[in-house]
Amino acid sequence: MASLFSRIILGEIPCYKIAENDDCFAFLDVKPLMKGHVLVVPKMEIDYIFDLPEREYNELMDFTRRMSKSLKEVIPCIKIGMAVIGLEVPHAHVHLVPLKKINDLNFSNHRLEIEDAEMQEIARKISEKFIS
Amino acid sequence: MASLFSRIILGEIPCYKIAENDDCFAFLDVKPLMKGHVLVVPKMEIDYIFDLPEREYNELMDFTRRMSKSLKEVIPCIKIGMAVIGLEVPHAHVHLVPLKKINDLNFSNHRLEIEDAEMQEIARKISEKFIS
Repeated sequence: MASLFSRIILGEIPCYKIAENDDCFAFLDVKPLMKGHVLVVPKMEIDYIFDLPEREYNELMDFTRRMSKSLKEVIPCIKIGMAVIGLEVPHAHVHLVPLKKINDLNFSNHRLEIEDAEMQEIARKISEKFIS
Repeated sequence: MASLFSRIILGEIPCYKIAENDDCFAFLDVKPLMKGHVLVVPKMEIDYIFDLPEREYNELMDFTRRMSKSLKEVIPCIKIGMAVIGLEVPHAHVHLVPLKKINDLNFSNHRLEIEDAEMQEIARKISEKFIS
């Protein structure tokens, strides 16, 4: 059965999509640690990020780098933090989180609830800045 | 003045070194979240990881991928987690942390104190597995 993220990529489950290319797909985390929390996933359905073939891994990380730039232009923050944990959804994904302090990248923190219209607006703004 | 990590790379400050190549340097975090917590740093002294030029960033991330494999061979864990925060030492660095549960990648957790001989042994074992 396809993973949750594969179903999102296929459009079977809705998401706040930001961008995609042949190898990667980016959308907003619906339970964000911070406003503008983005998930970048490889289209190849692999559980553990370091099991990706070299090319696909490097594409994912470069897409992540470019996405961080668009995100930082839209969301006021000091830096964009990056994290890969991988013990929940069994489809590799990179978290990009706008940070104002170290503890903003703490996955034990309370998740924000942001209204649909604002989530759409955030996704649209980041998407507009992204050069695929 | 050179950053703490540049001084480590230059050998001016001792570390539990694991590996290096022309662009990257890896050593054990002396205040590890988990046993085998590794820091991978670019030799180019840049504060914010996403400010690295494309080539240096991609080299760093590929070095990180290869290091994760050596680390996982040495330290029993479910996966190797990856994090970049960057709000302490102003020299970009990637944390690689062996994970058994999600909260093991929580930088608010108590840091371990591991004796010198064991740190040397961990660094040596990971180094032996690493293909530069």
